[in-house]
Order: sequence, then C-alpha cells, then structure tokens
Amino acid sequence: MIKLHCFGESGNAYKAALTLELSEAEWEPVYVDFFNGETRTDPFRELNIMGEVPVMEDGDLVLTQSGVIQDYVSSKTGKLGGRSAAERRDILRWLFFDNHKLSGIAGPLRFNMNFLPKEKQNADVIAFMQMRLNSALKVVETQLTETPYLTGDALTIADIACVGYLFYPEPFGFDRTKFPHIDAWMTRIENTKGYKHPYDLMPGSPADRA
Amino acid sequence: MIKLHCFGESGNAYKAALTLELSEAEWEPVYVDFFNGETRTDPFRELNIMGEVPVMEDGDLVLTQSGVIQDYVSSKTGKLGGRSAAERRDILRWLFFDNHKLSGIAGPLRFNMNFLPKEKQNADVIAFMQMRLNSALKVVETQLTETPYLTGDALTIADIACVGYLFYPEPFGFDRTKFPHIDAWMTRIENTKGYKHPYDLMPGSPADRA
Repeated sequence: MIKLHCFGESGNAYKAALTLELSEAEWEPVYVDFFNGETRTDPFRELNIMGEVPVMEDGDLVLTQSGVIQDYVSSKTGKLGGRSAAERRDILRWLFFDNHKLSGIAGPLRFNMNFLPKEKQNADVIAFMQMRLNSALKVVETQLTETPYLTGDALTIADIACVGYLFYPEPFGFDRTKFPHIDAWMTRIENTKGYKHPYDLMPGSPADRA
Repeated sequence: MIKLHCFGESGNAYKAALTLELSEAEWEPVYVDFFNGETRTDPFRELNIMGEVPVMEDGDLVLTQSGVIQDYVSSKTGKLGGRSAAERRDILRWLFFDNHKLSGIAGPLRFNMNFLPKEKQNADVIAFMQMRLNSALKVVETQLTETPYLTGDALTIADIACVGYLFYPEPFGFDRTKFPHIDAWMTRIENTKGYKHPYDLMPGSPADRA
C-alpha cells in the first residue's frame, strides 16, 4: 500500500494524489499539518530535506517532488504515461514547464491571496505573480487549441501536473471561462472515470480549519 | 552536430550548454536575440510554443526545457547521469526542485534587478523573490553538508541545473561566501575539466549589448 504524505490545500500533493487515483494504484493519504508548521519540523525534514509535500512511501522507497512521484507511479502502473521515448520526453517537458512557470507561480500566488494574513499580503507581489501566471496559462491555452490534452489525444501525467492548482476554489486571479480551451480541457479531466476534486481526495481543507 | 538555441544571459540555456560541454558532445550555439524580442516572434514560437530558450536540435529531433535537454544529453553520452534507477530519480528530483524553487526564482529575480529599466523595478517584488531564493539556497546548502555533490560523490546534471544561475556576475542578492558549502561546491564545479563560465560558453552578454 503506497502512502502519500499530503494535505488538501497543496496542489503539488494533488498532482501525485490524482495520478495515484486515476492510475488505480492502491494508496492512502497521510495527513501533514502544514498550517501548524509540520513541514518545518526535524522529523519531516528527515523525510524530505526540501521540506515539502508530497512525499511518497512505497515500502522502503521514499520519493519526493510531485513530478518524480508522477513518473514513478505512471511507470509502475503503465498508465497515464507516454507510449514512446518521444512522448515521454514531451510529457517531461510539460512537467518542467508546470513546475517552473505554472504551479511554481499559482502555488505561492494562491497562498499569498488566501492563506496569508491580510496585513502580510502585498498587492505588487500579487500583481507580479498574476502577470506571470497569465503568461503561462496562455501557453497552455495555445497548446490546447492544437490537441485535446497537452501531449496529444490522451490524458497523461502532464495534464495532471498542469491542472494541479486550477480546480481549487480559492480565488487567485484564474477564471477558467476566460480560457475556453483550458475550460474544455478541465471538463474533460473532470469527466474522466475516477476523477476527484482535491478536497475530496486528500485530508484537510480550509473548511476543516475554519 | 547538435545545435543549441541560446544566449549568454540565460541561466536556463547555460544548464543545457554546460551539460553539452562537460559531456564532450559535439555542439554549437545558435544565438537568440532575446533582448530584441526574438522569443516572442512567430518563427520562434513555431520552434517552441513555450517561447523560451534553450531549444536543442539534434538532426530532426527538437527538444525544449533545460531539464529535458540535460536528461537527453546525459542519456546519449552516458555522462553526468545516474548509475541506477534510484540515482536517476534522485537527479530528477533535484532538477524539479531547481526549476520550481531555485532557477525558477533566481531567473526572474536577476532579470528584474539587472535587465528591467529602473522605473519598472519593484522593491517589494524583489524582496519577495530574494526571500524565496534564500529558502531554496538553504536547502542546497544543507544537502551539501552531507554530500560533495547534490546526489552523492559525483557531478551530475542535477548540480549543473542548480548552479545554473549562481555563476552570473550581475547582483541578485546571492553571495556565495554566505553559504560555505555552496561556495566549495561551486569551486569544485569550476575546477571540473572543461568547465566554462556562461559568458565564455554562449554568445551574447551584457558587455556585448552595452
């Protein structure tokens, strides 16, 4: 049984959790109390020197970084991956793009706008990140005018990575109706057999903390 | 002969260029005039929908994203990569960490502080990115207290990725003398046979544009 250390609000953990779920792996979540500082504790840093979720345990194997976990689960289950070396490279390309330009911005932007106390929020920082996120979303929108999923005609871990933050309800300046191809792609993903929303898939949500 | 579309100031291109150089691949740079908007042109977007350098051409094969190119070159040459599945996953883990938390911040931070007109620079945005970069550098410093290179006792593409922006002379709030293990690691990399500084390896530099 694979264990995934995660919490509901983390889009990076969601990428790993949704990959596990849609590939029908046997897994269970282990709740990480991020908002009370668990990822900054010594035991957690022992598990992951990077101090981040997700962390996956499969027997003795411990993996961190959502992209690595996605790649591992896809290889292990034979699902949601590429069918050739070229497809696998194209998937990896979108995973890097996501980490660098999409989730790498959407994550801290959503955090700043929703989970940081109002007095610590900075309008200039938020505007800067919204500008960068918008540029990345335009790239995704353009690709989706050409193919129904990011790397072709099938759902892969590349789509799961890039959509990671986009289903969250907290406002961070993303409006799917402004991007018709992203909107249709998100609907395709939501209609995939076994799909679950992040707050239905992982323990913890803003409602739990309220 | 591999062609790498790049320009001197791009740390992301440098990761690919230094990987090619240190793995002794046959390659040549193709200058991209980023500062006059070449990456925003239709022909460039045709080459890479993401509108970014580096882009690598090896015969008919076109690859983008530094991490994908690094992985390809390492596999092709049998150098600078992992010797087992576990090592390869650990390398990939640091490549994602770099894209997400290290270069993903250092790149725009250095750009904002050095290549944006003074009137467009924003002190709050710069302070926010410096805080985030510092957190990522602490993770690298901690790992380097345990191992001479990020994934063990040998230089790999993981080190080349994470060091990508750190050799640049333009100030962006990074001072290697404040991180003794990073400093020693950078010296080890500089002393590697075949090592070249970004402005000696790729065409274009601030001096050329001055």
